[in-house]
Amino acid sequence: MEIEKRTIGVNVSKGGVKAVVWAPNAKNVSLRICNGRIDLPMEQKDLGYWHLQTDQLKDGDLYRFVLDGEKFLPDPASLSQPEDVHGPSQVVDLKTFQWTDEGWDNPALESYLLYELHAGTFSPESNFAGIEAKLDYLKELGINAIEIMPVAQFPGGRNWGYDGVFPYAVQHSYGGPKGLQQLVNACHKKSIAVVLDVVYNHLGPEGNYFGEFGHYFTKKYNTPWGNAINFDDAWCDAVRQYYIENALMWFRDFHIDALRMDAVHAINDFSPKHILAEIKEHVDALMKQTGKKHYLIVECDLNDTRYINGLDKQGYGMDSQWVDEFHHALRVTAGGDRTGYYEDFNGLKDLAKAYCDAYVYDGQYSAHRHKNFGVPAKNNPGKQFVVFSQNHDQVGNRMLGERNSQLFSFEMQKLMAAAVLTAPFLPMLFMGEEWAEPNPFLYFVSHTDAELAEAVRKGRKAEFAAFHAQGEAPDPVDEQTFEGSKLQWDLLDKYPHAMMLAYYKTLINLRKTVPALKNLNRQHVQVEANEENKTLVLHRWYQGEHLVVLMNFSDQQQVIALPSTEK
Amino acid sequence: MEIEKRTIGVNVSKGGVKAVVWAPNAKNVSLRICNGRIDLPMEQKDLGYWHLQTDQLKDGDLYRFVLDGEKFLPDPASLSQPEDVHGPSQVVDLKTFQWTDEGWDNPALESYLLYELHAGTFSPESNFAGIEAKLDYLKELGINAIEIMPVAQFPGGRNWGYDGVFPYAVQHSYGGPKGLQQLVNACHKKSIAVVLDVVYNHLGPEGNYFGEFGHYFTKKYNTPWGNAINFDDAWCDAVRQYYIENALMWFRDFHIDALRMDAVHAINDFSPKHILAEIKEHVDALMKQTGKKHYLIVECDLNDTRYINGLDKQGYGMDSQWVDEFHHALRVTAGGDRTGYYEDFNGLKDLAKAYCDAYVYDGQYSAHRHKNFGVPAKNNPGKQFVVFSQNHDQVGNRMLGERNSQLFSFEMQKLMAAAVLTAPFLPMLFMGEEWAEPNPFLYFVSHTDAELAEAVRKGRKAEFAAFHAQGEAPDPVDEQTFEGSKLQWDLLDKYPHAMMLAYYKTLINLRKTVPALKNLNRQHVQVEANEENKTLVLHRWYQGEHLVVLMNFSDQQQVIALPSTEK
Repeated sequence: MEIEKRTIGVNVSKGGVKAVVWAPNAKNVSLRICNGRIDLPMEQKDLGYWHLQTDQLKDGDLYRFVLDGEKFLPDPASLSQPEDVHGPSQVVDLKTFQWTDEGWDNPALESYLLYELHAGTFSPESNFAGIEAKLDYLKELGINAIEIMPVAQFPGGRNWGYDGVFPYAVQHSYGGPKGLQQLVNACHKKSIAVVLDVVYNHLGPEGNYFGEFGHYFTKKYNTPWGNAINFDDAWCDAVRQYYIENALMWFRDFHIDALRMDAVHAINDFSPKHILAEIKEHVDALMKQTGKKHYLIVECDLNDTRYINGLDKQGYGMDSQWVDEFHHALRVTAGGDRTGYYEDFNGLKDLAKAYCDAYVYDGQYSAHRHKNFGVPAKNNPGKQFVVFSQNHDQVGNRMLGERNSQLFSFEMQKLMAAAVLTAPFLPMLFMGEEWAEPNPFLYFVSHTDAELAEAVRKGRKAEFAAFHAQGEAPDPVDEQTFEGSKLQWDLLDKYPHAMMLAYYKTLINLRKTVPALKNLNRQHVQVEANEENKTLVLHRWYQGEHLVVLMNFSDQQQVIALPSTEK
Repeated sequence: MEIEKRTIGVNVSKGGVKAVVWAPNAKNVSLRICNGRIDLPMEQKDLGYWHLQTDQLKDGDLYRFVLDGEKFLPDPASLSQPEDVHGPSQVVDLKTFQWTDEGWDNPALESYLLYELHAGTFSPESNFAGIEAKLDYLKELGINAIEIMPVAQFPGGRNWGYDGVFPYAVQHSYGGPKGLQQLVNACHKKSIAVVLDVVYNHLGPEGNYFGEFGHYFTKKYNTPWGNAINFDDAWCDAVRQYYIENALMWFRDFHIDALRMDAVHAINDFSPKHILAEIKEHVDALMKQTGKKHYLIVECDLNDTRYINGLDKQGYGMDSQWVDEFHHALRVTAGGDRTGYYEDFNGLKDLAKAYCDAYVYDGQYSAHRHKNFGVPAKNNPGKQFVVFSQNHDQVGNRMLGERNSQLFSFEMQKLMAAAVLTAPFLPMLFMGEEWAEPNPFLYFVSHTDAELAEAVRKGRKAEFAAFHAQGEAPDPVDEQTFEGSKLQWDLLDKYPHAMMLAYYKTLINLRKTVPALKNLNRQHVQVEANEENKTLVLHRWYQGEHLVVLMNFSDQQQVIALPSTEK
């Protein structure tokens, strides 16, 4: 495995391309040049890899791999799928883009102010260019990092991104790989970091040809989303390499600043070295070589510090993780419903615990999980936890996809925003919340396989059993479900949206300028919760400064006596 | 969970018994007293447990649990199943046995000389009393620890023990729980330690009523032997407690000196604290309380030191593990066939590596496993590795169950014994090898379920695909398969068996008396392998002593020049 460049897939090298594909069960493999229908036989190497060096392919050309003379398949490591997931792959020379971000320095993770967005519904254009057009807006808002939901090629043009089947390919309708390079470059010019959401725990159902190539899946484990990726079973080395190189590519070739790895609790790996730790080691090596900083952030539902502890402490070395529990506690405190996983949360006391301990469950019995859950995270710094009052999942996994704007009063939304932005953790907004966007963020897909589309409809309904929601779920396959989930940028200067936006800007500015808010030292945090009045007082200190946040979650005026606490 | 006594199952307490059963899905649970058909309703407690204190049951009485008034089931934590796996459970007062082993002090693990035996085929009597009758013989042989294959109640009277379905019950035909207490006491009086093989990775197929009681299994993982035990999914706490208390019981109530935990690589547990680590913590607590020493030895096929590293190093804290690879390397060096998993082994060089590194595969590519395998075990002391030239699996998993006596020349058998007994690891013999027992050790079962018996026959055949063996496998269900696997004690004083026995005694005596052999410091080991001559020179040092073992694996005389190595 090399740090400097991709070793798998088709990569432009001097005077042509080098093609490498892993197909250990194939008897022979060729590369088909689609323009001209030329099949070039590949040479078998060790461990199931097939190689070819040719000058007959160049940047932009379409190709397929031909297994045993009869299966014409796109490249598992394809960078571009201009004709969608079933179509041929496209050669992309990742080196042609003219980067102008030499001056860019990825800020310290502690200073990240995250903004999660979905490339399809963030802008009217539904693509990277649409995001670029809003960078000035985002800069003015004050955030310094956008987090883009997965962009790996998925079927059709409408998908959250978690059904991607080409982890190396950038969704063509968004602008493809060169479009992403362009966006990252533009972000860096505006001093905005780019976090990319990547999915290493499963592969989508449509256009998934991985099984034809090799042992990408294992039957050792079962996941909620079908086949488990093979990270520790026979033949796992090539699969591990595939994902390690993927992480390296985003950092090296796309200048991505951080990866947000989806649901790593669903990555089953009992190897002596967990795949996340091995990814971390390689990213460390890359950073050493380039001098650039890159962060690894995980979505993890285990409250297990093993993921975020350093490699030297037998941890997996992840820089940070999402903490859904802060959200759950905040939402219940704000008066949200308590069905499904919210049943584990009681409100104010849990929120107070989240401020102090990051994990609400750090060893207690969880009624929802039916077991004791979590470990204490006392020694992990605040920057290791990403908090939010909503995100794509918390909104989109509701049957009607209501944002907080539709569930909470205007004042409560403001309080929730403050609760997040004054937390001693990394705050994250979900696109549009800063102006209380009223449109829902619904679950949508555009599978071309009718049977699959129907299965998704059904699965969606089944998912809502836990929420005991009533009525019919919007059809995920209907284009209107997607269109109706887009942000309405024309609301920005209208009442009451402009007011909310101003409020967010002020809060963000405070977060960036008040030392006691910027500094995430968890030792300098104290919380008093008054369950009777539904008030919470958050104290934060930095050097001589003592900052007090008064939060009133009740629906009436409360008197809070400020104690003379010093720290 | 208590350290002092069992908290689950039926336990004799003052003036009666206390019964506790976990049945979280039941609407009501009663305890049926079989003599008189009296049903005593149990009281529902937290987390799915049901309790009952009654004076209507006493030591020896038969009972069942009645779930929802219609399922009459034996106790999952039954101590005794006098009428086999489908029959009622029996109350056993574990405190009535009159122990006389106060003077017993479990020796240091480093000094263990293990002797694996199967209670059914070791003696003509097929029970614990039959073992006790041979203790003088074993003492004279020189071993100081017997390792008894699993004794948890299984269907019928013929089973290796890995189909047990009552992990707390001692096989009735062997003598039941009181018989085991008697045997352990007798062993201790003869200064022989007792290692008990326990199975925490699966439950047998017949008489398995666990699913009726609770969430003992999870669908998260798949195992080669059916349902995976639920160590980390919803409801796992009770299952974890079940196995932790099981380990504690053997040590506390049966005075067992060490557990050998079967195939722990098939225990799937992604909890923050692995079940083995939690067992270790509890055993540590027990030892602190009693002042007695107990060891945890695992069969593990992962070459991953995480299992044997200390809890303080984020390991699971196991005291020792089996290393099959020493066996594989030795066997191939001795000229054994190279089918199946033996394909990974080349002979002499691997054996040399095993002496030095314990694991042969500690990071290299394994052709059989199709992946890079293992991690170095340089910092783990010799006592953490149990080695052997044969064991129940290596013999019994052959289609014809041939012991080494049927596969290797008499002289080669001697050499293999020396290779094991001079290794800087813990040596283990398999019953009868010390006199070159010619009988096979075949796979046998006595399932009462005809369909299951047939499935076992079929499964057995499928298993031999990897060995490419020819001919028909003996019928595992046929009683003759069991009878023909028994040791022939009348061979002991016959030629050539008496000669082998004398040889083993001499070797064992050397092992016990020569400091350079007794001392397992791995830094004081050096090996020279000469592949051309098929000779291996093993050097061991202790203080001023330098011991040289010359091994000639060729079939002719070889000249070995002794180097003047000092260390």
